[in-house]
Amino acid sequence: MSARLDPWGHFAIEDYEKLLEEFGIRPINEVYGLMSRLHPYFTRRVVFGHRDFDKWLEDLRAGRRVAALTGFMPSGRPHLGTAMVYEELRFFQELGAHVKIAIADAEAYVVRREDRRSTILNGVDFIAHAIAWGLDPERTEFYFQTSMKEEYYRLIQMFSRKITMAEMEAIYGELSPGKIIASLTQAADILHLQLDSYGGFKNVLVPVGADQDPHLRLTRDIADRFEGELGLKRPGSIYHKLIRGLDGNKMSKSRPEFAIHLDDDEEVVRKKFVSALTGGRATAEEQRRLGGEPWKCTVYEMYLYHLLYDDEKLKEVYDDCVSGRILCGQCKRKALDLLLERIREHRRRYQEVKESNIVGKIVNIPSF
Amino acid sequence: MSARLDPWGHFAIEDYEKLLEEFGIRPINEVYGLMSRLHPYFTRRVVFGHRDFDKWLEDLRAGRRVAALTGFMPSGRPHLGTAMVYEELRFFQELGAHVKIAIADAEAYVVRREDRRSTILNGVDFIAHAIAWGLDPERTEFYFQTSMKEEYYRLIQMFSRKITMAEMEAIYGELSPGKIIASLTQAADILHLQLDSYGGFKNVLVPVGADQDPHLRLTRDIADRFEGELGLKRPGSIYHKLIRGLDGNKMSKSRPEFAIHLDDDEEVVRKKFVSALTGGRATAEEQRRLGGEPWKCTVYEMYLYHLLYDDEKLKEVYDDCVSGRILCGQCKRKALDLLLERIREHRRRYQEVKESNIVGKIVNIPSF
Repeated sequence: MSARLDPWGHFAIEDYEKLLEEFGIRPINEVYGLMSRLHPYFTRRVVFGHRDFDKWLEDLRAGRRVAALTGFMPSGRPHLGTAMVYEELRFFQELGAHVKIAIADAEAYVVRREDRRSTILNGVDFIAHAIAWGLDPERTEFYFQTSMKEEYYRLIQMFSRKITMAEMEAIYGELSPGKIIASLTQAADILHLQLDSYGGFKNVLVPVGADQDPHLRLTRDIADRFEGELGLKRPGSIYHKLIRGLDGNKMSKSRPEFAIHLDDDEEVVRKKFVSALTGGRATAEEQRRLGGEPWKCTVYEMYLYHLLYDDEKLKEVYDDCVSGRILCGQCKRKALDLLLERIREHRRRYQEVKESNIVGKIVNIPSF
Repeated sequence: MSARLDPWGHFAIEDYEKLLEEFGIRPINEVYGLMSRLHPYFTRRVVFGHRDFDKWLEDLRAGRRVAALTGFMPSGRPHLGTAMVYEELRFFQELGAHVKIAIADAEAYVVRREDRRSTILNGVDFIAHAIAWGLDPERTEFYFQTSMKEEYYRLIQMFSRKITMAEMEAIYGELSPGKIIASLTQAADILHLQLDSYGGFKNVLVPVGADQDPHLRLTRDIADRFEGELGLKRPGSIYHKLIRGLDGNKMSKSRPEFAIHLDDDEEVVRKKFVSALTGGRATAEEQRRLGGEPWKCTVYEMYLYHLLYDDEKLKEVYDDCVSGRILCGQCKRKALDLLLERIREHRRRYQEVKESNIVGKIVNIPSF
């Protein structure tokens, strides 16, 4: 059976396999045996690759303190792509990892030139949604980059010593002082948890989209170069596919009309869903005869990533599609129902989070 | 009378006049009328130029709070060139300015690759010598860059947003991430005093050597660009000539054999002095006939900068030299006596400072 043709989303993995080979990212299935429990993201290869995740899992199994960290650029609104990262972190928290989330407001300031006020309000919103998605507010550390203490900033300064312009250019292309600072800030985000004053977590995992690997490579190089001086270790990382927007391209904050946001109104979701790209054939007759092509379908991707965690049920959808038993309209309605239920529940919890003002209580929110 | 031929050291000012014209540095004599008292450095044009020093002096005269700040790279040992800056700051403190001194240990770390332990010990020593030179330990703020708080570091990050690579390259030539961070750190040194949390001194004067103007220009540009956002104002600056080493080239930490250090032993000073470059002629006969050339003489420079603050006495030395009444040997012995007395007194005060451990009491010294 070709990689394209199975219900677990191995389709379109080819693009990612290049990444695996070229940069030494290891296939995720090699660590299955180390996990006490497999989230569907792993079995379905939504998370398809890793670096040093095996070491992290071994530390977790041995009862050593491990952490998972990621950062969000606080622009636009969280969507189903953002939620994939929430879900990964929620899972690692359940497994016993310490979870920390950075709001990249300094990066937004220096690189994106976002307005400071909306950056901070967006950041608060990304945190509220994370909690609504299921991250435990009592056990998750959230921080804004600009609220960090001097020791974190010192890291940025120190890292600059052992990185060359050529190395940075290879990753970021044309450089600016702002980009350089932003990339070193990101390295400080990933590595600061290893300092004693920030918990001394020597094994930190960073779940990222496949496009973020260059940052990880830079950060691993920095860790190597500061092993002696600061006792830093390379972070581990796992790589997930990028969820596509309803038009078939990457789901992005910059194209909100093709993204499902976690706080979209029911009517907005319904409307966006009408035009979702599917794997349907030109005519109903043809589709009944040849079956649909779920590996092309953005609606199937939603089942796969968010709507059906039950493998049996997912397989049913897949089989119904490829056999031609079900047409896109019916399948879309079913997905829409599941999605609306999910969003409705999420919005309810999000409202609770907002009303409780828990974010204000647990996070040091910078002033505008 | 040509600029070369007067006892007040206007000689060799030509090189500096280019600076004045080219970069809009104003001649120092235009502000004489604004000063309640003129230090010999001003009348002798050791300090030869300025930017916005007039505004600073007006604020001082009007009783508004003004500050003077400089930074020392903590490598090597303080010498007579360092002492010129101590002397300027001591004078401004006497006039009523708030004085703050940065120890550039972060810069030493990222750019100079100095060993951290010796950097910090050197920094402590630069502070001890400053106090021994006459800076009031009760009224002077000293700090190590790496001991600063997050607000100062945030400035570095913020500044990176509004500076381009081209602007930095124009100043620093080939760039590295370390150089970029170091130059933005220097801008933070100069500008942080304007923040409310650091005293809110809106008018800060930076006394520097003529070669440091590019940093000031960058910092002034940054101040302009953050006037709206942070309320920053351009710093003022004054420019002094660079004292020469005993071989006639710039006195430098990297060529200790030609520098007089503030803690040099008497025997060491005597020995270095033997080979000091003078403005003497080829033979005694010739010198008696033509007179010496004090504008070429490193010993005369010591009289001018450090050994004779009394203008009448300085004029005597000058006249004796150009008239051929005195030969170099005799003149050197006189300078050596004055210098040894000066150094002896300084070393005595330096010992007191060390024994009192006042540096440890007033400065937050970083750990190695």
